[in-house]
Amino acid sequence: MPRLATTPPQHDPTPIFELFRGSYGSELLTAAIAHFDIFARLERSPESLESLAAANGLQMRPANVLVTALRAMGLIGVADGKLTLTAMAQEHLVPGGMYDVGDYVGLAAQSPGVLTMVRLLKSNQPLSFDDGGAAFIYRDGMASAMEATDSARHFTLALAGRAKNVAPALAEAVDAVDAELLVDIGGGTGIYSYAILQKHPSLHAVVVDRPEVLKVAEEMAAEYGVADRVTLQPGDMFDDSMPTDADIVLLSNILHDWDVPECKKLVQRAASLLRPGGQVAIHDVFLNDEQDGPLPIALYSAALFTLTEGRAYSEAEYAAWLVEAGLTVQPRVDTLIHCGVLAGKKA
Amino acid sequence: MPRLATTPPQHDPTPIFELFRGSYGSELLTAAIAHFDIFARLERSPESLESLAAANGLQMRPANVLVTALRAMGLIGVADGKLTLTAMAQEHLVPGGMYDVGDYVGLAAQSPGVLTMVRLLKSNQPLSFDDGGAAFIYRDGMASAMEATDSARHFTLALAGRAKNVAPALAEAVDAVDAELLVDIGGGTGIYSYAILQKHPSLHAVVVDRPEVLKVAEEMAAEYGVADRVTLQPGDMFDDSMPTDADIVLLSNILHDWDVPECKKLVQRAASLLRPGGQVAIHDVFLNDEQDGPLPIALYSAALFTLTEGRAYSEAEYAAWLVEAGLTVQPRVDTLIHCGVLAGKKA
Repeated sequence: MPRLATTPPQHDPTPIFELFRGSYGSELLTAAIAHFDIFARLERSPESLESLAAANGLQMRPANVLVTALRAMGLIGVADGKLTLTAMAQEHLVPGGMYDVGDYVGLAAQSPGVLTMVRLLKSNQPLSFDDGGAAFIYRDGMASAMEATDSARHFTLALAGRAKNVAPALAEAVDAVDAELLVDIGGGTGIYSYAILQKHPSLHAVVVDRPEVLKVAEEMAAEYGVADRVTLQPGDMFDDSMPTDADIVLLSNILHDWDVPECKKLVQRAASLLRPGGQVAIHDVFLNDEQDGPLPIALYSAALFTLTEGRAYSEAEYAAWLVEAGLTVQPRVDTLIHCGVLAGKKA
Repeated sequence: MPRLATTPPQHDPTPIFELFRGSYGSELLTAAIAHFDIFARLERSPESLESLAAANGLQMRPANVLVTALRAMGLIGVADGKLTLTAMAQEHLVPGGMYDVGDYVGLAAQSPGVLTMVRLLKSNQPLSFDDGGAAFIYRDGMASAMEATDSARHFTLALAGRAKNVAPALAEAVDAVDAELLVDIGGGTGIYSYAILQKHPSLHAVVVDRPEVLKVAEEMAAEYGVADRVTLQPGDMFDDSMPTDADIVLLSNILHDWDVPECKKLVQRAASLLRPGGQVAIHDVFLNDEQDGPLPIALYSAALFTLTEGRAYSEAEYAAWLVEAGLTVQPRVDTLIHCGVLAGKKA
């Protein structure tokens, strides 16, 4: 069990996470150069993301992940709404160019990591659990690591390595004064909720997740000394009923696991649980609204792409879903390790 | 054939190479956390590189590569000549720590790239040609990609993607005024020499490399319009005789392919070819003399480790070998894509 942390760490561990995810940069860059027709196409003519995706047999989720990363790398720009090559890519990545380095990068074209990335991009499927992937996510009918005791425990605790660092900062960032009920959708270990509970002694939390995951959340609630204020509710967050009249509905690092239709549905469901004046708190990473960075988020987006059905989204995307759900978007507050809270308040 | 470039590129392509090599950071970090006993050991007590290496069953070349990278990442420091944990590693990478993120990073412990890196570190062997590796190097009795026509051509041309960008900068950096004979040891495509020849119309070059590689160098000499001033000499740079009375002996991105004894031998051989007043020009990347960075060179060192028998060296290491060979070290001049020239002059 992770030990109790009630304050943020002294040293921001973000660089460790960024170094850890460097492989996604290598893989996407090599894939783009050696396995897809991107630089030669854009050299011939600027084109829309949709057109570039279609020409390469890519659906929109993988196309977004790949092109966002290439934009964050400074290789693709946008002009008049169409994708173009930057001067850097023009000089160094158009096949046959005098200063083209594509063949050098292509030395890694057949490496296992690159081949796996290419396969996932083309199929728009995350790695399966059987395939060495994590399959952190669950939906009805899907084989998931989160349904078997050992793997659910292993992955849930591994993910806690980030949560326990971020949670104290989240507790600072969420406005929970006078709040009585927090509903934590897909709460996992519950660490995010427990940090908020520790700061607000009259708050009660309901953590909704898969039954095997909640076994860890139960141990963790005892460890954190908040068990008497926590209700663990096993269920399917897409279909099962959840408590209403909530002051706060927390979606902490959940939406990035899902594609746009599921995200909209979850935000709608979350909003429907609120009492008047309550808030949906989306705690997640944020691409910028231009979807061209920051690079660490673009690479994390690739990680999410390979492991889940989601990707990183921009504040504008999250804000639009909150507005669609009838909520008023509050200013974003950053927490730690690239994360921040974007809340939508019910009138 | 690469097109002729007589001036450096307008846009420095270094960022492309750095992004390309991010995977080595992911793999070394994950290996250190999930496969070796480094952070718990150094938490118990600071120790020497030799001791940490022995405890983990690592020979000095892989130990150097791994620890240099961890130092460049800001995770390991040095105090009183022993390796210590930085405050960042102390807080986030000691197993069981309140803010330990090791389990999160360990999610990638079984990925193919990490497992391969761990195997190579433990065996101190580069990837073999049969094993999907490149085996760019040649020594008598070794299976090498550079001995078969197709693979020698493929790899030699791929490596030219970097050389053609760097060569014009190298030609500026090498003092070849009044020089008559340049010997290019392991010259590959010959591009480095050809750029110098283009700048010095009375210079003649002898390019020494494997016979299959020199087929590419021959085509390239014609393309670059210097064929009448180039002699292609097939041979083994460790054993066969090479021309003497040279004004310049060039070792361009060669020494990083070899371990310390071979490097010393090659520098000695190069020095023995010089006429009085001549120079051995080592054109390569440079770790800093503290061997704790820069990070991009530490990661390139890992690439070299996996593909060759070498690694990146520091200026101090190269300078010591030049001095041992009786030469006087000149100030280093940077070229491009992390490279620079360190010359040693004969009295």
